[in-house]
This record gives sequence, C-alpha cells and structure tokens, in this order.
Amino acid sequence: MLEDKNQQRTSLENLGEFGLINHLTKHFEIQHTSTLKGIGDDAAVLNFKDKNAVVSTDLLVEGVHFDLSYMPLKHLGYKSVMVNLSDIYAMNAIATQITVSIAISNRFPLEALEEFYAGVAQACNVYNVDLIGGDTTSSTKGMLISITAIGMAKTEKLVYRSGAKENDLLVVSGDLGGAYLGLQVLEREKEVFKVNPNNQPDLEPYSYIVERQLKPEARMDIVELLEKLEVKPTSMIDISDGLSSEILHLCANSEVGCNLFEDKIPLDPTVISTSEEFKMDSTTIALSGGEDYELLFTIDQTDFPKIKANPNLTVIGHIAAKEEGTHLVTRANTKIALTAQGWNSFNEE
Amino acid sequence: MLEDKNQQRTSLENLGEFGLINHLTKHFEIQHTSTLKGIGDDAAVLNFKDKNAVVSTDLLVEGVHFDLSYMPLKHLGYKSVMVNLSDIYAMNAIATQITVSIAISNRFPLEALEEFYAGVAQACNVYNVDLIGGDTTSSTKGMLISITAIGMAKTEKLVYRSGAKENDLLVVSGDLGGAYLGLQVLEREKEVFKVNPNNQPDLEPYSYIVERQLKPEARMDIVELLEKLEVKPTSMIDISDGLSSEILHLCANSEVGCNLFEDKIPLDPTVISTSEEFKMDSTTIALSGGEDYELLFTIDQTDFPKIKANPNLTVIGHIAAKEEGTHLVTRANTKIALTAQGWNSFNEE
Repeated sequence: MLEDKNQQRTSLENLGEFGLINHLTKHFEIQHTSTLKGIGDDAAVLNFKDKNAVVSTDLLVEGVHFDLSYMPLKHLGYKSVMVNLSDIYAMNAIATQITVSIAISNRFPLEALEEFYAGVAQACNVYNVDLIGGDTTSSTKGMLISITAIGMAKTEKLVYRSGAKENDLLVVSGDLGGAYLGLQVLEREKEVFKVNPNNQPDLEPYSYIVERQLKPEARMDIVELLEKLEVKPTSMIDISDGLSSEILHLCANSEVGCNLFEDKIPLDPTVISTSEEFKMDSTTIALSGGEDYELLFTIDQTDFPKIKANPNLTVIGHIAAKEEGTHLVTRANTKIALTAQGWNSFNEE
Repeated sequence: MLEDKNQQRTSLENLGEFGLINHLTKHFEIQHTSTLKGIGDDAAVLNFKDKNAVVSTDLLVEGVHFDLSYMPLKHLGYKSVMVNLSDIYAMNAIATQITVSIAISNRFPLEALEEFYAGVAQACNVYNVDLIGGDTTSSTKGMLISITAIGMAKTEKLVYRSGAKENDLLVVSGDLGGAYLGLQVLEREKEVFKVNPNNQPDLEPYSYIVERQLKPEARMDIVELLEKLEVKPTSMIDISDGLSSEILHLCANSEVGCNLFEDKIPLDPTVISTSEEFKMDSTTIALSGGEDYELLFTIDQTDFPKIKANPNLTVIGHIAAKEEGTHLVTRANTKIALTAQGWNSFNEE
C-alpha cells in the first residue's frame, strides 16, 4: 500500500490560494494530446476531435464518506480519483482528465495537502489522466473533496444503462463485498484503539479486504479487456453504490427484468471468512455493501464464448422480460424479489 | 430580485440520494445539441464536433464564501452558477453545460434545496446552459457547493491570459467595487439586526450594490458584443478575485508591464457615495474588493474605434514593456506599483 508520513507542519494560512494551487500541482505533467491547456488560465481547454466527451462528478465529505483516523491522506487522494474514474469506465469510455477541488480547515498543515496530492498524482500516473484544474479553499470544518472526471469515447463505443435486452447475460467484474468488510475491520480496530492505544492491530489476515476499502482500483482494465475481446456490452453501470440497487437501476433504465443467482456471486475467501467472523450474511454484503468499484454489464449470449473462463469476469444471471420482475434465485432455489437495500439496513443485522 | 419563500419543511432524511436528485432536477430541460446525454447515467455525454471544450470549476463554502443570514437560497443558486460561467466567458467561449454538487447538513429541509435549485434553473434558462450532472450528499456542518462549468469555442476564438503585448489597451467591462460595498452594507444590517430584530433596514439607497453582491450577472453579453464588434481581445481574465491581482496575473502570463489610470476606473455613483459613508477609499475597493464578475481584456490599438463610446466597456490603461513594471497612475499623476492586495488589507483601513 501507499506510504503516509507527516513529519513537518507548515500552516496553510501563510500561502495564498494562488501560491497553494501552484505548489500542489507543479509536478503534474500533461499526457494527453486532447489537453490543449491545463491549469493556469480561467479554464482548461480540451479537444476530443471526432470523439464525445464524457463527464461525471462526485463529492466526498469527511465524516460521511471517509474517516481520517484510519484513511491515510495519500490513499484518500488515490481513492477519490478512483471513485470518479469508475463512472467514466462504466460508459465504456477512456478517462482522460480530472479536476480536483478541496475545501479544508486550517487544522490541516500544508504537508497533509501534499500527501493528498501525492495520491492524486499516483492515480493520474497509473490511469493516464491529466489534472487540468480545481479549486482550493478553506472550510469551517473538516475536509471535502469534489472531483469531476472527463473521458472520451466514439459514439459507437459508448454503453449506457438502457441497452439490456431479454436473454442477455448479466456479468460482473472482480469480486464483491470486500470494501464493506474492510471498513468493518477498520472500524473495529478504531474502537479497540480508543480503549487501548498501545494495542497493535494485526490486519494481515484482512489485507485483501482492507486494501479494497483503502486503495480500490477502478476497472480501466475491464474496458481495455472488452475492447480486446471485441465484446461491446449492451448495457453497463458502476456498482459502487451496491450490486442490488444498481441491478435495479440497470433493469429500470432498460425496461427489463432479471434473475440473479446467489451461488454465482463472486466472493473472495477473505470475504467469506470475515463475514462468518462478523456473523453477517455474505450474500447480503455482496448485494448491498457498496464501495466495490466494479462494473456490472450485460452481453448478448452470442458473446459468451469470448468472455467464458476469464478470471476477471463472472456471469451472475440473465435478463428477463420486464413482466417477470427482478429476482434473486437463492442457493435453495427459491426466488425472492431484489430490493435496493441501503447501507443503513445493516444496522439492524 | 428573486423571491425566497420557505414555508414547508420536509426532512431530507426521508428521501434517498437517487430520489433527491431526480426530484430536484426533473424540471430541467436539455437545450444544447452538444448534450447527447444529461442526468441519468454514470456520466453525461457531450459532443462539441470541431470545437474545443472549455472546463472550469469552483467551490463555495458556507461561512467562507456566503452567509445564509442575508443570502437567500435562490440567489445563492443563481450566483453559484454565475461564479463558474464567468470563467468560461473569460476564455471568450460560450457556456453550454454545468454540473452542480451540494453537500448539505440535515438542518436544511427539502424546500431549501428546491429554492437553491430554482435559482440554478433560472441561471440555466437565462444563460442557456444545460444541467448535466451532479452529486447530493450530507455534510457534517453547513452547506458546500461545487460547480463545474463547461463551454465550447473554436480554437481561433479562444482568448488566454497570455496574449497581451506592448501598447495594447487595457479594457474592463461594467463598473467595479459594487459587490464589495454591497457586502459591507449587508454585514452592517446584520449587526443592527442582532441588536434590534425589529429594525427594518432601508436598503433602497443601496439597491444597486446589494444586487451586485446577491445577484451578480456573468458577462455573456460581453462575449457576444465582442463577436458582433469583430474584436478579438489579445488576452482576457475574469476579475472576480479583484482587479489589481488579476491585472498582475495577466501581465505575468503575458510577460508585459502596464499602466492603469486611477481616474479611468469605472465607478457607479452608489459606489462613490457608499465608499464615503464607510470612510473607505473607492479606488482601493475597486482594485481589491473582488466579486465583481467583470472581464478584463486587452485589445490591439487598431480595434479602439470599434469599442469607443460603448457604455459597457472602459479603457483603463495600456500595456507596457515588461521592464517598465506594473503601475497605477494616480489622479495626482504619481506612479505607484500595483500590488495584489488581498481582501484582508481592508481591515487596517
């Protein structure tokens, strides 16, 4: 994972806004020919020629979306970019530019912002994205991050939520539930730490799920893989808000129903063992945990041979007629209606 | 000015994020052929054909950038859009799309968000801009607004900060200092209100400057006017951060100096009378007050006959060689170096 070391403390108050942005962004380099002008004028200038621009934006709020007591700032910078890129990839587009804005209280020293931007820089590097703008301002409390991601795609490449049709296969990338369980482990360690600050947590058995929470990766590789396999999904959606709610969105937008098979849902062994430890149902977590930056998509049945046996992709169900409704077929072979369970529904478990 | 009526109170907690965005944006219509897909998928899709995309973003924080005790939410929605469009116009581009994200504590009822979005809708209507995305989330304290504005322009139309050359004329739109003084009046009335809540303030004599603060207009009309007059500025910048600091940015980017004439700075009579009332120097306010969403640009001298006598434009100086430095020529005909005085410099006056 990424390192995070804050040893110096330089007050933000001594730097003007202009000086601060310059300081934080001076090492960023422009990679894309589509970026004609990045940071340094009233606006950035982009040119996508015959391609479409794809735009998505997200807000992340301290105390709501992240907790700095276990989220290192460099990870936070990296993850904030991932959250946004994931939406671009869900359009089957290539991410090309981001703007990053931060509101931050002056309890944070300059070195904290440098750590955050180091994470942003690493994400830009790994995902080949240009930082083209942003805003830095003070907040009255805590930290808030706003990112807008821009991508590009030819019209014939774009995949919307609305194209799924009867008998298409429902496919998901990666595995599910890890990010939510990683958060549970971190929350538990935080409580232990409050009682005994000298306790050294052993996170080693949970390293996979903790990394899913603290340093997720957006699935640029899936967009590239589909291109290579010559598979164009009929519909696609990012499932970071939870698998079940996003299947329902996809079916509603496409005006279809679906059958999702419980025994097909991909789970990492750590997810299964940690679910048992926390006395939680792993299917419920996979369906509603959220924060797994995976892609859900549908393909025509004729494309099945192309994706079959690919370790990154799992067929978890199929699309049905709208009248058939949206169902989960359990391991006991009973059909239950899918519901968009929110995060809070876990509180009762 | 805009109306602001909050009579009902519907708790935000009862609406999911998805329901909330749908509710707030359902009346927005897509106007631009460049908007292929607006709200409703993982990302919006835009197509600018042979034109460039121009992108700018700003964060506005309650308690830092605005005070809801005198800023009605509908005005805030309108102004938040203006703040961002101004940067697009400063590129000599046409604004076409915006994303609007809000973090808001649940002390705000749904009706407050509706008021805010009514202001956003009015701005979108008047400035012919499509709302194409955004995010709505809870905050732990107060309200925060993040907007990304997108525009388009042909390459040959774009105007950067960097094109000013020796002997060009320095031109500003509108008049200056009003927004800052409007804020002073509102702050004074707030203090009076604290002491005597029954006092009815008479803002009528200050209506121009109060409107400059609460309902500013971005200068789309200036971009259209320059097109009509067939004048392409050699450089341009938005001066909402203050005239003097932005002149310095423009000169630094263009590697030139300038002479700005104090007696040419356009001031509304209300600005002059209110400056006297507050015992402030009107030139200092015009130079450093900020929040005037006006454009500063430079033109070749041969274009002077085209803009001469236009009531929207004032020649306030000229560009000099870099070695000559950046100066204000006072009414007493003495030359003093321009400095990027911050807002706080007023505290000592």
